[in-house]
Amino acid sequence: MADMFENKDGRTELSELGEFGLIEEIKKSVTLNQEGSILGIGDDAAIVRPTENHDTVVSTDMYMEGVHFDLSYAPLKHLGYKTITATISDICAMNAMPKQVVTSIALSNRFSLEAVEEIYKGMLLACKLYKVDLVGGDTTSSTGGLAISVTAFGEVEKNKAVTRSGAQQNNLLVVSGDLGGAYMGLQILEREKAIYKENPEIQPDLEGNDYILERQLKPEARKDIVEQLADMEVIPTSMIDISDGLASEVLHLCKESNVGFNIFEDKIPHDHQTIDKAREFNLDPTMTAMNGGEDYELLFTVNFDDAEKFRNNPFFTVIGHTTGAGEQCQMVARDGSIHPITAQGWNHFTQ
Amino acid sequence: MADMFENKDGRTELSELGEFGLIEEIKKSVTLNQEGSILGIGDDAAIVRPTENHDTVVSTDMYMEGVHFDLSYAPLKHLGYKTITATISDICAMNAMPKQVVTSIALSNRFSLEAVEEIYKGMLLACKLYKVDLVGGDTTSSTGGLAISVTAFGEVEKNKAVTRSGAQQNNLLVVSGDLGGAYMGLQILEREKAIYKENPEIQPDLEGNDYILERQLKPEARKDIVEQLADMEVIPTSMIDISDGLASEVLHLCKESNVGFNIFEDKIPHDHQTIDKAREFNLDPTMTAMNGGEDYELLFTVNFDDAEKFRNNPFFTVIGHTTGAGEQCQMVARDGSIHPITAQGWNHFTQ
Repeated sequence: MADMFENKDGRTELSELGEFGLIEEIKKSVTLNQEGSILGIGDDAAIVRPTENHDTVVSTDMYMEGVHFDLSYAPLKHLGYKTITATISDICAMNAMPKQVVTSIALSNRFSLEAVEEIYKGMLLACKLYKVDLVGGDTTSSTGGLAISVTAFGEVEKNKAVTRSGAQQNNLLVVSGDLGGAYMGLQILEREKAIYKENPEIQPDLEGNDYILERQLKPEARKDIVEQLADMEVIPTSMIDISDGLASEVLHLCKESNVGFNIFEDKIPHDHQTIDKAREFNLDPTMTAMNGGEDYELLFTVNFDDAEKFRNNPFFTVIGHTTGAGEQCQMVARDGSIHPITAQGWNHFTQ
Repeated sequence: MADMFENKDGRTELSELGEFGLIEEIKKSVTLNQEGSILGIGDDAAIVRPTENHDTVVSTDMYMEGVHFDLSYAPLKHLGYKTITATISDICAMNAMPKQVVTSIALSNRFSLEAVEEIYKGMLLACKLYKVDLVGGDTTSSTGGLAISVTAFGEVEKNKAVTRSGAQQNNLLVVSGDLGGAYMGLQILEREKAIYKENPEIQPDLEGNDYILERQLKPEARKDIVEQLADMEVIPTSMIDISDGLASEVLHLCKESNVGFNIFEDKIPHDHQTIDKAREFNLDPTMTAMNGGEDYELLFTVNFDDAEKFRNNPFFTVIGHTTGAGEQCQMVARDGSIHPITAQGWNHFTQ
């Protein structure tokens, strides 16, 4: 990465460099490491060689300035990183291994080459860590804000992809990691932005919130969980990643699999920072998990026979179970009362 | 298509429907026809099954309002159509057959469900005509203009993809169809828009320009040329599609293949409408082909041994030949004078 974009001094205008110049700069800093990546950036299309007896899984996501990110607190490098990890999270949610990505960036002239460099640095750092090749893309201008599109490809043994629709009665509902952190990270960033707007003299107070800020600004995709499930010889019956909040995701599994769910409130895993901050903000930690979103953990169902494998396993928490066909999704609260789960997940179009 | 989006009366707000409601509406109107399309819209990722002994080619393009299209004259349905054909044109340029696409659309609340419907109708019409399956996508909101991202996948026999880098000395340079039409179509649309702005009473005068208007608003991808080349048993040594103008594209072949090119001005194919309109606008028809762009024809090199197959073939025109390694790209003008070719292709970032 060190030699990416040679001219480091000052600001290089994109208009000087042009689209092809920019592509050349990006091409220089990209290496292909996957066996299946035959041809990368610079032709009409990339060439990818599928592994025999494997299916390809494909997911695409669009990230818009002012909707998905706020450049007043999201550093460009983090943003680049997050667009890659959030997209390959969908590949992991199919129980597949991410292999390649293609990315498109539309940006206005207010961005310099150095700004684009920061975005790509973040993207390429994520690619390196996740052993994913950036094989193509498009760069263009925007009359409005910054727009980033990422399409990710992965591979899974033929007929072994895990969808949202395979959950059955009496399956366990399992989640990786902890929930609500990304949402609390966002609350802190929004608060500090509001304070800064009122008084630019005050420095942002981000101390002691590293974990939840990182959950928001630089989330990880749980590729390690896909590997771990393989090691444990567990194939989930259904799976989804948590991008819009636990409530929204469990409703997807419910609808696509046609089974009900019981989630036990006291089982929902939180980091202590999430709980502390939720209290400070007068928020219910359960709500941060249910409706917060952007945690990018994996939520899946497994056969009851696999229960033993998840007991006291630090990577996973069993938070509930499926009920019968056509049943509701419900939350069993700490006091034993039962509440139907409704989607309070973020509705983009009302923002 | 007839039953797409049931509520046809009046305007349905996207905020009422929400992202998942919109996805449901889209999902209803999509069918999967390719053997390799295992799972389409509605899960974390699509599942595609690669054909044995084939490579996958992947291309992605981003289309931004105010940069790539102007909604004051591009109907939304045409726009949807064009984003698909322009992207699969890149797949054809690899000598591959397009199979699937994933699309993302970011749009503001000024668009109704009915507007989104129009975009998807155009996309799905192109998918149907080109036998391509829409297997996934993302829909989100935008604080600025409309943004569309399309990623297309195709297949080609293993190791048989044609890149930009295989042209050799003494190859013929061949182009499909005719050039400059899309550019002249744009000139007419821009002129009528300017007139309309000055006096909204005046109806746009588009009569008699159907061909070049269609070249601009509803271009086709030359999948038929890929099929034809296979029938003729011709494998080009290099290939590219003409999106930025002949000058820009031949310079790409020159650079990537490290050979020079001679293009003969009098061989460049134009439709008579293009020539007529160029004269009316006081433009040089050669310029419309060299620098106009968006014709989406295929430009390729073939071995001299294949020359006979292209003689008097109505689908192709031999417009020049390669010269030695490290030589220049030049145009041999009608008067025999020689001019170096420089990229006058559109530089997005200076717009």
